[in-house]
Amino acid sequence: MDCTTEEIAKHNDASSCWIIIKNEVYDVTEFLSIHPGGPSIILKYAGSDATSAYDPIHPPDTIQKNLSPSQCLGPLITTTNTTDRKDRVPVEQTQDEMRVEREMKRRPPLNRVLNLGDIEDIAKRVLPYPVQAFYSAGTDDEFSLRENARAFDRFFFHARVMRPVSSCDPSTKILGYDSSLPVFVSGAAQAILGHPEGELNITRACGNASIIQMVCTFASIPRAQIAAAMLPSQTLFFQLYKITDTAATAKVVREAEELGYKAIFLTVDAVVVGNREKDVRSLWVMEEQEGKTQYYVEGDPEATTNLSGSSAVNRRNVFDPDLSWKETIPWLRSITKLPIVLKGIQCVEDAVLAAEAGVEGILLSNHGGRQLESSLPPLEVLYRIRQQRPDVFDRLEVYIDGGIRRGTDVIKAICLGATAVGLGRPFLYALSAYGEAGVIKLLDILRREITISMRLLGAASIRDLTLEVVERVDWEPVRRRIGKL
Amino acid sequence: MDCTTEEIAKHNDASSCWIIIKNEVYDVTEFLSIHPGGPSIILKYAGSDATSAYDPIHPPDTIQKNLSPSQCLGPLITTTNTTDRKDRVPVEQTQDEMRVEREMKRRPPLNRVLNLGDIEDIAKRVLPYPVQAFYSAGTDDEFSLRENARAFDRFFFHARVMRPVSSCDPSTKILGYDSSLPVFVSGAAQAILGHPEGELNITRACGNASIIQMVCTFASIPRAQIAAAMLPSQTLFFQLYKITDTAATAKVVREAEELGYKAIFLTVDAVVVGNREKDVRSLWVMEEQEGKTQYYVEGDPEATTNLSGSSAVNRRNVFDPDLSWKETIPWLRSITKLPIVLKGIQCVEDAVLAAEAGVEGILLSNHGGRQLESSLPPLEVLYRIRQQRPDVFDRLEVYIDGGIRRGTDVIKAICLGATAVGLGRPFLYALSAYGEAGVIKLLDILRREITISMRLLGAASIRDLTLEVVERVDWEPVRRRIGKL
Amino acid sequence: MDCTTEEIAKHNDASSCWIIIKNEVYDVTEFLSIHPGGPSIILKYAGSDATSAYDPIHPPDTIQKNLSPSQCLGPLITTTNTTDRKDRVPVEQTQDEMRVEREMKRRPPLNRVLNLGDIEDIAKRVLPYPVQAFYSAGTDDEFSLRENARAFDRFFFHARVMRPVSSCDPSTKILGYDSSLPVFVSGAAQAILGHPEGELNITRACGNASIIQMVCTFASIPRAQIAAAMLPSQTLFFQLYKITDTAATAKVVREAEELGYKAIFLTVDAVVVGNREKDVRSLWVMEEQEGKTQYYVEGDPEATTNLSGSSAVNRRNVFDPDLSWKETIPWLRSITKLPIVLKGIQCVEDAVLAAEAGVEGILLSNHGGRQLESSLPPLEVLYRIRQQRPDVFDRLEVYIDGGIRRGTDVIKAICLGATAVGLGRPFLYALSAYGEAGVIKLLDILRREITISMRLLGAASIRDLTLEVVERVDWEPVRRRIGKL
Amino acid sequence: MDCTTEEIAKHNDASSCWIIIKNEVYDVTEFLSIHPGGPSIILKYAGSDATSAYDPIHPPDTIQKNLSPSQCLGPLITTTNTTDRKDRVPVEQTQDEMRVEREMKRRPPLNRVLNLGDIEDIAKRVLPYPVQAFYSAGTDDEFSLRENARAFDRFFFHARVMRPVSSCDPSTKILGYDSSLPVFVSGAAQAILGHPEGELNITRACGNASIIQMVCTFASIPRAQIAAAMLPSQTLFFQLYKITDTAATAKVVREAEELGYKAIFLTVDAVVVGNREKDVRSLWVMEEQEGKTQYYVEGDPEATTNLSGSSAVNRRNVFDPDLSWKETIPWLRSITKLPIVLKGIQCVEDAVLAAEAGVEGILLSNHGGRQLESSLPPLEVLYRIRQQRPDVFDRLEVYIDGGIRRGTDVIKAICLGATAVGLGRPFLYALSAYGEAGVIKLLDILRREITISMRLLGAASIRDLTLEVVERVDWEPVRRRIGKL
Repeated sequence: MDCTTEEIAKHNDASSCWIIIKNEVYDVTEFLSIHPGGPSIILKYAGSDATSAYDPIHPPDTIQKNLSPSQCLGPLITTTNTTDRKDRVPVEQTQDEMRVEREMKRRPPLNRVLNLGDIEDIAKRVLPYPVQAFYSAGTDDEFSLRENARAFDRFFFHARVMRPVSSCDPSTKILGYDSSLPVFVSGAAQAILGHPEGELNITRACGNASIIQMVCTFASIPRAQIAAAMLPSQTLFFQLYKITDTAATAKVVREAEELGYKAIFLTVDAVVVGNREKDVRSLWVMEEQEGKTQYYVEGDPEATTNLSGSSAVNRRNVFDPDLSWKETIPWLRSITKLPIVLKGIQCVEDAVLAAEAGVEGILLSNHGGRQLESSLPPLEVLYRIRQQRPDVFDRLEVYIDGGIRRGTDVIKAICLGATAVGLGRPFLYALSAYGEAGVIKLLDILRREITISMRLLGAASIRDLTLEVVERVDWEPVRRRIGKL
Repeated sequence: MDCTTEEIAKHNDASSCWIIIKNEVYDVTEFLSIHPGGPSIILKYAGSDATSAYDPIHPPDTIQKNLSPSQCLGPLITTTNTTDRKDRVPVEQTQDEMRVEREMKRRPPLNRVLNLGDIEDIAKRVLPYPVQAFYSAGTDDEFSLRENARAFDRFFFHARVMRPVSSCDPSTKILGYDSSLPVFVSGAAQAILGHPEGELNITRACGNASIIQMVCTFASIPRAQIAAAMLPSQTLFFQLYKITDTAATAKVVREAEELGYKAIFLTVDAVVVGNREKDVRSLWVMEEQEGKTQYYVEGDPEATTNLSGSSAVNRRNVFDPDLSWKETIPWLRSITKLPIVLKGIQCVEDAVLAAEAGVEGILLSNHGGRQLESSLPPLEVLYRIRQQRPDVFDRLEVYIDGGIRRGTDVIKAICLGATAVGLGRPFLYALSAYGEAGVIKLLDILRREITISMRLLGAASIRDLTLEVVERVDWEPVRRRIGKL
Repeated sequence: MDCTTEEIAKHNDASSCWIIIKNEVYDVTEFLSIHPGGPSIILKYAGSDATSAYDPIHPPDTIQKNLSPSQCLGPLITTTNTTDRKDRVPVEQTQDEMRVEREMKRRPPLNRVLNLGDIEDIAKRVLPYPVQAFYSAGTDDEFSLRENARAFDRFFFHARVMRPVSSCDPSTKILGYDSSLPVFVSGAAQAILGHPEGELNITRACGNASIIQMVCTFASIPRAQIAAAMLPSQTLFFQLYKITDTAATAKVVREAEELGYKAIFLTVDAVVVGNREKDVRSLWVMEEQEGKTQYYVEGDPEATTNLSGSSAVNRRNVFDPDLSWKETIPWLRSITKLPIVLKGIQCVEDAVLAAEAGVEGILLSNHGGRQLESSLPPLEVLYRIRQQRPDVFDRLEVYIDGGIRRGTDVIKAICLGATAVGLGRPFLYALSAYGEAGVIKLLDILRREITISMRLLGAASIRDLTLEVVERVDWEPVRRRIGKL
Repeated sequence: MDCTTEEIAKHNDASSCWIIIKNEVYDVTEFLSIHPGGPSIILKYAGSDATSAYDPIHPPDTIQKNLSPSQCLGPLITTTNTTDRKDRVPVEQTQDEMRVEREMKRRPPLNRVLNLGDIEDIAKRVLPYPVQAFYSAGTDDEFSLRENARAFDRFFFHARVMRPVSSCDPSTKILGYDSSLPVFVSGAAQAILGHPEGELNITRACGNASIIQMVCTFASIPRAQIAAAMLPSQTLFFQLYKITDTAATAKVVREAEELGYKAIFLTVDAVVVGNREKDVRSLWVMEEQEGKTQYYVEGDPEATTNLSGSSAVNRRNVFDPDLSWKETIPWLRSITKLPIVLKGIQCVEDAVLAAEAGVEGILLSNHGGRQLESSLPPLEVLYRIRQQRPDVFDRLEVYIDGGIRRGTDVIKAICLGATAVGLGRPFLYALSAYGEAGVIKLLDILRREITISMRLLGAASIRDLTLEVVERVDWEPVRRRIGKL
């Protein structure tokens, strides 16, 4: 390849996009559509040096891991013009960057942040648009995303009165590990896009609060660095993505076990990446903001091919699409002594299969509405297990995530049989808005909401949160946002 | 403490808030969040003398009762500057005060007030914002608040025709006492925030109308003064909050009995205060109106602690959180001969326990949606008792409150088995808008709506309001506000 | 009484309202709230001569019939000033009158009127606001009004194919009389408020179209005049309001029978008048348009009394509130040989009682949502009769009205067992918008919609409209207005 | 007839509309209301020569086929003025035409078109309003149109995990013919209104993509020309409208068979044309845009007749309204050896009759909500067949169309038992927006959405799409449009 800056500069848009990182040249054209941070941030550096933007927010070797050898074009051939070119084309501040800067100064004081909706609102204002889109996107028309949350609205309480609640203890155990609340951090990766210290913000806040954090294979902070930030009393779980390279995955598992992670949450709902249109569109939204809208011209290359860029997602899929009950769990058992939890169980049938497969837990989840559109809301799956196969609860621990935003949401899930509930996006919003202080605030809000609601429900401990104090109603409650910041 | 005006003046915001009342100095920092009228009205006087605002609207000793000894800082140390300072910083009229003044002049004539929705609209226009927020707030996202009202929409009538209704009598008996309507005043405290004569407006209007008023432990007019305003024929009930100081509570009960109150409604749904965000936010709304929005700064004290100010609510809880079936009711029986009603029963199970405990009545209520979020709407609880345990109606009287705004709402509850229904907020709105005349108007509207609807339903008396003339439908009627003032 | 123009001029508002009609003076203060055309039109002439407005649109003696003797104050005492005063205070054109004049010129051509929604839209634009309010108002929050119409949305068709439908006959018989469609004119009175020829517009259009008109006791055109306009082949039914003066009612019935009316529809759902707030408010809306908003002043007479003006409705009720199964039907049988239909049956139980009482038919109706709020939608009552007591259909004819606006609505009701359906408001809107031509158009639209839909449903005649081609679904279809004029 | 240009010019509006095409004169007054492209496009040429507009977009003889002999007025009598007149009245560009021209330039590039909703949005912007109205219109209030789509929202998936899906094959067979997706082109006629090459755009795109196209009797491109564009491997089906002229229909069938069409889809849900008001109104919308709104005048001819122009639809109906199980299918069998599918089955009962009649397939369809209003959504009919008569699936192939816009919609229908699903409007929108490239894009999107969703559902082939992975839920999911172009 001709890796001169002259040649590189020609590959400066989505049809062919090359970038320079630390004097190496990469063809990221196909990678654009699967970049977790959205394509726009890459395209900003298309045809030029992206080191300054890439370096602070990615673990070493991230890009190489995600590209095929043929996409690593080789070392930059420096010519005298290189430095000049960068000088001539200084990166200007975009509309979006100006907005972020402005909104950062307008964040309310922490004591005015009353609930997780407030935190989300603030985060959405201060995040770069592509990151906001990446964090918040759901699949297709976002039915599962919306219904995950709405499912909680249909459950009402049978509040019990005249029960002593001066002492009220919301703590519990998850896989035998102490947790000060029946809550854990679920699948919140790519945190570095929201805050330079990324997932560490969560680790530090959770340590003091005695909350368990699940750390993703693709965490934007190296998993060793996160483990190093643990308090002695702190528990971390590891969210595993099995990739097609089984040996590489095994290495990751052993490393996690050695680093002190206490359980493996095997992701089973993401054999391919869901169709998240808000995320894909974010680049074009940015272009419009900059007044650079593109229009169709006759002869559009797409007009003569039926291989859309998006098909590339399948061709370049890194996740192992061939997980199976028969092989995957025995294999995982063979390489680790840690308890195994399946993350992404979406129906009663698979909950039963998981129990039969002998795993220690299942996390009912549709990946926050980011994978299969129209996947049942996890709370509805939990309810169905309770109705149809209550024996499952005796055979393993059941968790859920997706749509949980209030202390009462947590309590409803516990009443239906969950051991604990996971939250994902709220942690990303919290650290994006206020860093570690935001995560502390979030946990503080949850603790307060859970404790007040338990008392008003007549519950002095988690054991009092039983099926009999919750009821699924047959009408459609109206959801409305109250107040605003 | 250094109670000089210089020192006091330094404690002039929410982080540390001192005020002077009648030459005594108080630290009300922690009290801010539990002030029934909202924190903003206090903060306006932070660091200065609040006597002129406090005195006209609080019973004597109110503040002392609500503060711990360590928060009573002692007498003001007068210096020569005191008067000066107050002169220098005259309290200016706020945007909100100007709005109230303007709207008071624009109230419609009473004969144009057609329904309780009109009264609420007018009251919300003429009330100071923090009071409006305090009166109207529900918990969290206000699901229970909204669903309380919407529950009535699902019940339709089987109107019966060809029944003589020239004589139509909506009167009934509540615990043996005459009531001209199957309606009573429920839990409407802090009335003084809406009108200088507070709960007395209700007392006077109800006397002539033969309606029973339930007077709260925390009424803003002393309960003796209310009792003194009773007509000879008039009945008052007493709403009891048991506080942790049992002896003090016993004293209150005996005093109420001696003053002639005829029943004790023991509040059982408020062992801690619900999370009413609209109320909490009201201060900041006011600040924004005045152009004094605050922003986050690095080093925000909340950023380094996980004890939010709101946790203080629990630390300073005055209500007894350890009520119990075994102890509380026998204790209450031992100190009073009055009939006992449990206010705040929220499910069938507790209705049965109440019957077994031998109380004379239960008030199905979720505190107007101000306590436990997602608590079932009282009308739905009533319906479930009727379906599942109709024997309860033979063992005690059942009342409900929450969301009742129309004569047909009252009738629906009576048809399902309630002896009478309580209204709370509507009375506060009525007196806030028009004082005693507003309360008279409200009762007049209810009487008219109940009587017309009973006739059209073919009912000549309360006995004709039976289960067979009401039906719970399986669709979702559309609620829409008709007309406007 | 001092019936001089000077004295009369003092009684010029709602607190005391006198008017002159044909040199007689009347105190209409109490009558204001029950005037079918709304109070505003009267108040415009308060304190002065209303003859010019009254005379063209009321049958002779209307006012005397509706007032008590004490409200007829006697003959006008003419003074020299009378004429002068009227000259000095010419009645100006109001905002509303100007709007009506403007909109009348902007009506679309008839061939652009596609459906009954169009007709309603046009009528609402060209009607004086108080008349529009009187025609369109429902009770309280208008739940029954809205749900009457929405009930039809829940019924879907099982369209049958491969059935010959070149011949398609929508004609039927009602009480043995031919009707070209399974549709009749129900309860559309006070038509003169919308068009100077009032109900005659309907009579003429229905004659040619072979549609039966039900004429109200309180028709704004004398019933004899309507009868005189009948074609020889035409059928009229009579809607009877029984008033407390039984002898007077008997006289009315005999007169109707003699005039050739073929059935008596006894109104049973209107023993008192429903609470129609839009109607009551219409005066104040007009005042606001004219910039004459009134405000509350301390000392408002309503503030010191609990007898609101609206209570007067009950005191002055003209309808007999003591109808009964035992007495009313035998009495009616004793005075007429005509078939008897009960108009306003609202539940299965009363449908059964009607069958047992031996009447010839029942009209399931809640008076278009104008009487008891939350009365079940008639279509739902029809469905329940079909489900629970199908024997009723063998014992009498069943009709329904309320919310019918489309040919498919008509067909759904027939499928569920109705012999025919009534429409009321649409006829008033049609004649208000275009006079007789509007009514012709309305019938033409219905005929077209019914015929097309029958064919597409595979039905060649009314006999093919059976229970098996309709299904009540368990979800909530979305209603949305398509297109606009 | 006086076919001079002077005379013709007098017939220049909807009351009498003559046009000249290739020197022949036609009276199209009655035809206006049934013109598939809407009346406005014709009226633009009322009283003048329409050849230039007609010729490029209609098959030869189209107009003659649709007019009665008496409406073919004969050859134009040329006078010296003819050319002059056309010169004097040049056709100006309308507001709508200017909009179309503008929007054509603003279409987004194809790689930014993410879903079928995008395609529809773009098409609606670039289509002439009357064509957009004709394509998109549903019957009456469009309940069936909306509910067709909403029906899919109520079905959720039980996603299965741990199933190998690296190989994922969405191909299937339809009536024995290969299809690369369980999708075919259903009932998309009049394509020439959206693009000059009309249905050929679909034919060409489907050939490469191995998708079967159903070609309509009334395709705007001659069926022979479409057949000639087929690839050797390509399959076409023929959508037959039986007209009253049975012999002519037989000729059409034989011609289709000879041209290589592989199945006859007999349309059974369109014995008359549905009431599509948006389509009818489109002319008037155009008039308003041009500032030429018409108003009612007394003496409107419609005012004195009860034969509205719209009744003409019935008088001039070309479709055979007398299809029957007994005669139509045997007749069709007698003239063709092709498999027969009934298009437009709308209930379980008729699905059973079809099975008994021995046809090879049924297409559950309500004509895209364009025929009988309130016809059950096809997906609900499919669900009922599965619940009530699963034997039907063993006796013939079942397809559905109506409301399908996402890969998950397709999968849901297959899970419930459909062999394949049809899409109609989306193909018209795709070719209107981008011609053949748009259709390629559409198929590409569907393939991608289906494949991703199958994998996430744990399905490696169509056989894995079973009843057990889909569930009809009992609540109402909220539909909301995400993102925009």
